[in-house]
Amino acid sequence: MDLFSLSLFIPYLEWDVTLQQVLMFMLQLGSATFLLTEPVISAMTTGAATHVVTSQVKYLLGMKMPYISGPLAFFHIYAYVFENIRSVQLEALLLSLLSIVVLVLVKELNEKFHRNIKVVLPIDLLLIIATSIACYYADMEYVYGIEVVGNIPKGLPSPKAPSMSVLPEVVTEAFGVALVGYVASLALAQGSAKKFKYTVDDNQEFLAHGLSNVIPSFFFCIPSAAAMGRTALLYSTGAKTQVACLISCVLILVVIYTIGPLLYWLPMCVLASIIVVGLKGMLMQFRDLKKYWNVDKIDWSIWVSTYVFTICFAANVGLLYGVVCTIAIVIFRFPRAKTLNLKNMKEVEYKYKVEDNCESLKQVKIVSVNSPLVFLNARKFHADLLKIIQKDGMSSQCEQNTLLCSFSNGSCHGELVQPCHSDRHVLILDCSGLNFFDYTGVSVLLQIYVDCKNRYIDVLLAHCKGSLIKAMQYGGNLDSENPVFFESISSAIDAIPIHRNYSKFSEQSEL
Amino acid sequence: MDLFSLSLFIPYLEWDVTLQQVLMFMLQLGSATFLLTEPVISAMTTGAATHVVTSQVKYLLGMKMPYISGPLAFFHIYAYVFENIRSVQLEALLLSLLSIVVLVLVKELNEKFHRNIKVVLPIDLLLIIATSIACYYADMEYVYGIEVVGNIPKGLPSPKAPSMSVLPEVVTEAFGVALVGYVASLALAQGSAKKFKYTVDDNQEFLAHGLSNVIPSFFFCIPSAAAMGRTALLYSTGAKTQVACLISCVLILVVIYTIGPLLYWLPMCVLASIIVVGLKGMLMQFRDLKKYWNVDKIDWSIWVSTYVFTICFAANVGLLYGVVCTIAIVIFRFPRAKTLNLKNMKEVEYKYKVEDNCESLKQVKIVSVNSPLVFLNARKFHADLLKIIQKDGMSSQCEQNTLLCSFSNGSCHGELVQPCHSDRHVLILDCSGLNFFDYTGVSVLLQIYVDCKNRYIDVLLAHCKGSLIKAMQYGGNLDSENPVFFESISSAIDAIPIHRNYSKFSEQSEL
Repeated sequence: MDLFSLSLFIPYLEWDVTLQQVLMFMLQLGSATFLLTEPVISAMTTGAATHVVTSQVKYLLGMKMPYISGPLAFFHIYAYVFENIRSVQLEALLLSLLSIVVLVLVKELNEKFHRNIKVVLPIDLLLIIATSIACYYADMEYVYGIEVVGNIPKGLPSPKAPSMSVLPEVVTEAFGVALVGYVASLALAQGSAKKFKYTVDDNQEFLAHGLSNVIPSFFFCIPSAAAMGRTALLYSTGAKTQVACLISCVLILVVIYTIGPLLYWLPMCVLASIIVVGLKGMLMQFRDLKKYWNVDKIDWSIWVSTYVFTICFAANVGLLYGVVCTIAIVIFRFPRAKTLNLKNMKEVEYKYKVEDNCESLKQVKIVSVNSPLVFLNARKFHADLLKIIQKDGMSSQCEQNTLLCSFSNGSCHGELVQPCHSDRHVLILDCSGLNFFDYTGVSVLLQIYVDCKNRYIDVLLAHCKGSLIKAMQYGGNLDSENPVFFESISSAIDAIPIHRNYSKFSEQSEL
Repeated sequence: MDLFSLSLFIPYLEWDVTLQQVLMFMLQLGSATFLLTEPVISAMTTGAATHVVTSQVKYLLGMKMPYISGPLAFFHIYAYVFENIRSVQLEALLLSLLSIVVLVLVKELNEKFHRNIKVVLPIDLLLIIATSIACYYADMEYVYGIEVVGNIPKGLPSPKAPSMSVLPEVVTEAFGVALVGYVASLALAQGSAKKFKYTVDDNQEFLAHGLSNVIPSFFFCIPSAAAMGRTALLYSTGAKTQVACLISCVLILVVIYTIGPLLYWLPMCVLASIIVVGLKGMLMQFRDLKKYWNVDKIDWSIWVSTYVFTICFAANVGLLYGVVCTIAIVIFRFPRAKTLNLKNMKEVEYKYKVEDNCESLKQVKIVSVNSPLVFLNARKFHADLLKIIQKDGMSSQCEQNTLLCSFSNGSCHGELVQPCHSDRHVLILDCSGLNFFDYTGVSVLLQIYVDCKNRYIDVLLAHCKGSLIKAMQYGGNLDSENPVFFESISSAIDAIPIHRNYSKFSEQSEL
């Protein structure tokens, strides 16, 4: 992807982009790039390309048009074009169509025979030279009234410190450019890293991009970023180190100093055609839509809505919308995710069969917690766990007893509830998957402990992190007599018989 | 929590609150209440209470003060008080201090002896009556210049349609009030539901709150919400149905029609004292800070920063900040969470020992995916899985062979690489925990498949959802010869020997 397109309509941001990229490095925001998902980037760049094409329409049609900007400018421009369709200059339109057809055809052929013939026809350059000469000799500027590029200053401008006063005005747009430039470059860098087997540091890239924009900001350059086309060209010509870049820089300097003034006679419509055809790759990202539709409908909708936002407003608004939308959707998907797994209990059941006969087959349930326990999924976790407890009648017998109790007007407290205790069930929570938690998560765990206690179920926690143990011990009134936290599941299981013997003993003593 | 406090400084929002709550019901936003975590609500209400206390300071001190509002108004008010500390009216200050001491003491005693004596001393009412009478007979308004409440219109105002033109101006603040009122009520409703064993529908509560504000909006009421104190009182007096509310409504109507005009002589400083003491419960939430500190430091910082935002700006700004901050922190915590678990492999290893002797002990790795695979954790998942593959030399032998190959200038393609194939390792991914995914997640899964293929590892996926299978089949070039998706781990394991026999055969034929 070439940032040329973006820079066309957001010029003079160089210095601010530099500052912001260095700032982002200092904030270590490189680690936040995971928020910029592929659908969002793809939709945003496609939208930006559409904007650039729109800005070239007046040159392609040879129309005079006032400068239209602001929200929904995109639609106003096309409305203006259709209203003034009669003012289209046929000569310019024909020249544009011809240029576009030639460019597309030759580029397709270049790509097709790339493997066989090693030489690529520089059709852009040839077209520029041919049309400039034709325009000069046919005097098209005066005969047909075709707009030409006009005077281009030769060489580099003298370096000048960038204006600081303009910073506050461009800060929002510069943020978008800084981010998009960085992300586009990072994507290429990661591809290259994979190819040549090295690693890329996301944060260092921010610093590198920021610093590489320092010197250009004294020459009024457009913000720099990696260009996919040029990178691919370098790969194909066998470039391996940065010396290749040095050589191409020298070549570009020569062009600037010698060829620039010769572009005076280049018709604007030909230049516009070159820009539009150059954006073909970005516009072709529309094809991604089919892929997203097949892989994930939600990502497809994010693509479409981000594109619409970019079209209606600007690239940075679209980017912001896309990121916020992606986060919001994930936030609302998480509360529905599964939070726990019933473990395979064969071993445990077997053990108890041997020790205490078949009766105690359903005594122990081991549930492993698979996810962090935060406000996003704590409610779901609570509900899921209660479902597991209620299923298989883990607490049914006790509840029936309690029910009987309440019917026989409360006089049975000593006799009928006691047998329940002897049937205590055990729930072992394997917290090895519980990586982090917040206050809500700890509250829910404590609530589960209390809920289970009310149903005569012992809750034992295995593989808890130190911070979780501390938080739970502080937060609630845990049973002080019997240990709740264990280092492993097996140590938790070993601790169960104590309860059982105790309860058995009390049962027998009552009988 | 009583919303009286909030409503004091955001009056006349009733109609907008109604509209917004009904709108939120229609958007089914009740399911979004999980975003409002306890620390955020606690900090925001404490901040709101602080604002109300600040607004009462001028009455407590008997000072004349201009109305100060806007951002940082909180600090400007206290700055003004300290600058004009000499204009404090000593009579008002003494009366305020006396009232506060009496109120706090009696309320403490009430609470302490609540169990023994069933009658609660209505100290607020007694204080109002006593000070009003004293003020009237001592003619304090003129003798000491103490400000009094003044004329209160008797009875209800005549109903009047709410003004629609004011809607746009109050929409932001009404949003905050609607949300906070709803959340406070919901918390009480859930407590009550737990107590009396019924369930609460979050969305229906939104509709109920919205509709219950329709009639009051014709009488210029402050927005209604559940009051913790009154709910507790109803519980303690044995109320069970909504008839209790009807009775208390009648009582309040009587008060409005008969006692209102008698409040003319109530000193403002006494009213301010009653308000401040009434907020004691909300201000005491500062004690929560210790709890949050011990349970989760991050929630502690969210509490503190939300409180600071509420103090500096307003309750709705604080609420917004708190929610955004909570989401942002979770978003940045997730990428570091563990995404997978190595399964206990005893069974599998045992099986192969019997069949093929000890050599194939390390052949099969079963990894269970524990979490949804989205842009948040996809990178971490990729890295974790590569670590598991590289550990235990799952691919080391093959890589060495390939290395040898590349040293012996490529002539060995037929002979040396082939033995690698006979040593194919197998990685089984148990996707039963992979509840949902996005485009990034599927890309990473496909990337893992390709990475493993390059290391001569077969990847088999078990327990995949239909949508995941479809997405992966569409997204990448999976091996068409051998099946990749299996219904269960055991069927995946059963499928392995086919490869092994095949590779063994080719090995033998070469030897």
